[in-house]
Amino acid sequence: MSGAMIPYRHTAQYYETDRMGIIHHSNYIRWMEEARIDFLRQIGIRFSDLEASGLISPIYQVSCQYRRTVKFEDVVAIEVSIVKYSGVKLVLAYRMTNETTGELCADGETTSCFTNFDGRLISLKKEFSGLHELLESLVNGQK
Amino acid sequence: MSGAMIPYRHTAQYYETDRMGIIHHSNYIRWMEEARIDFLRQIGIRFSDLEASGLISPIYQVSCQYRRTVKFEDVVAIEVSIVKYSGVKLVLAYRMTNETTGELCADGETTSCFTNFDGRLISLKKEFSGLHELLESLVNGQK
Amino acid sequence: MSGAMIPYRHTAQYYETDRMGIIHHSNYIRWMEEARIDFLRQIGIRFSDLEASGLISPIYQVSCQYRRTVKFEDVVAIEVSIVKYSGVKLVLAYRMTNETTGELCADGETTSCFTNFDGRLISLKKEFSGLHELLESLVNGQK
Amino acid sequence: MSGAMIPYRHTAQYYETDRMGIIHHSNYIRWMEEARIDFLRQIGIRFSDLEASGLISPIYQVSCQYRRTVKFEDVVAIEVSIVKYSGVKLVLAYRMTNETTGELCADGETTSCFTNFDGRLISLKKEFSGLHELLESLVNGQK
Repeated sequence: MSGAMIPYRHTAQYYETDRMGIIHHSNYIRWMEEARIDFLRQIGIRFSDLEASGLISPIYQVSCQYRRTVKFEDVVAIEVSIVKYSGVKLVLAYRMTNETTGELCADGETTSCFTNFDGRLISLKKEFSGLHELLESLVNGQK
Repeated sequence: MSGAMIPYRHTAQYYETDRMGIIHHSNYIRWMEEARIDFLRQIGIRFSDLEASGLISPIYQVSCQYRRTVKFEDVVAIEVSIVKYSGVKLVLAYRMTNETTGELCADGETTSCFTNFDGRLISLKKEFSGLHELLESLVNGQK
Repeated sequence: MSGAMIPYRHTAQYYETDRMGIIHHSNYIRWMEEARIDFLRQIGIRFSDLEASGLISPIYQVSCQYRRTVKFEDVVAIEVSIVKYSGVKLVLAYRMTNETTGELCADGETTSCFTNFDGRLISLKKEFSGLHELLESLVNGQK
Repeated sequence: MSGAMIPYRHTAQYYETDRMGIIHHSNYIRWMEEARIDFLRQIGIRFSDLEASGLISPIYQVSCQYRRTVKFEDVVAIEVSIVKYSGVKLVLAYRMTNETTGELCADGETTSCFTNFDGRLISLKKEFSGLHELLESLVNGQK
């Protein structure tokens, strides 16, 4: 992976606003999911293909720091990068820029693991070595 | 079933508001689902038991008429009644009263059918006769 | 307005799925809002400009008929047309096509009115004649 | 405040599930909001009264750690406690127990600040001394 990842873009919707007149904070968590799935797509992994092969990727930890409010119709660009990949857990960082205002509006982090549909933890290294090597190479490529 | 059904109560949440300062209209559709599941529970049908027996109940049609705005922290009482039951489709009516203001705030209707997990329409009369007879008796009891 | 309106496109998100494995029906109501706002934008009306001028457009009635399930990652194209415009109420129709499968997946309708922030009904004809004439001309242009 | 705070209870809704068959992680962030507002109510502060007096309380930081999946119809009990109160920021911790299974399912934290409707930070100590003293006494009472 070069620096050529394209930021994911989300336009803030009316139904995402709250009565403070701003985007409700819970929606950023959803945008991070959109960006995560788009990130995987950009590196060649279609999320629904993963699931078709018996692998799901539940979220283990999420955090978000809100820096500037986002308003209805603002376009938010989300850059995703890998913080850490252990073979079992994947930590991603999200940097959200409000393109309408030019401000950094939030940043966040998710930790996801990989399990089968019964909830058993999957070691990608052992069971999905292609995916494992791809993620490893991305981590190294970012350095 | 006598007239003794207990209306379902939902407290309007902050994250359900929008920047008009009122509850976003899409949430009423979700409240109708909460009320539908509670209605079934009151007549003895646990929704997750239905699904465990291979029966799902997707929505085929929904409508809602908004009469008065609902605000954050308002308590909405939803009365559910059966409009029609054909053995294949179930039409329910929802009457939503804002208990905080005493006003009728909305009314709605859903049509749901019954299918298996592959999407094949199920005739309750043929395959789930106990449930069929229960719904029939409720329709008659309402008359 | 010619027939040159561009359908609004929404990609079905993971957080919009439910445990039936399909998109939850309440989300289509939100997509209709996205399409409505995009429709207005295409005819030259920015929703937030409307609100800045003191005009809000709450939903008075909504309905949706679900024809085919939509799945995660499917792209839904939504065509919007004016059914009726009375000077006070605007009825829009929505035709949703799942571009991934090529199927008509749903159609819906909304009735919205125009009010000020205190909830008083506004006659566009009297108070926002430019907008009124635009909507009138669109209705005539569709015939 | 004694230890007599009542945990807030939320029943997991169908529309909160996703296609993994579990509650989507973004909803826990919303439940934490419900619990936060209920917590304030229990200590005598009605959220809408705060807003009526010109004070809003946007979220500055949120985090959640997911320990066990929650399923449709599960009842989640959320205990809220004050981690830190600085006069400007309020840090709350949330401990979520799935009452249906008896398991600790998640824990989270929010940092909220207080601002006026123009987004200016408000020092409760200076401008809302009653609320300030209440929060101070709660922090001390927890020790």
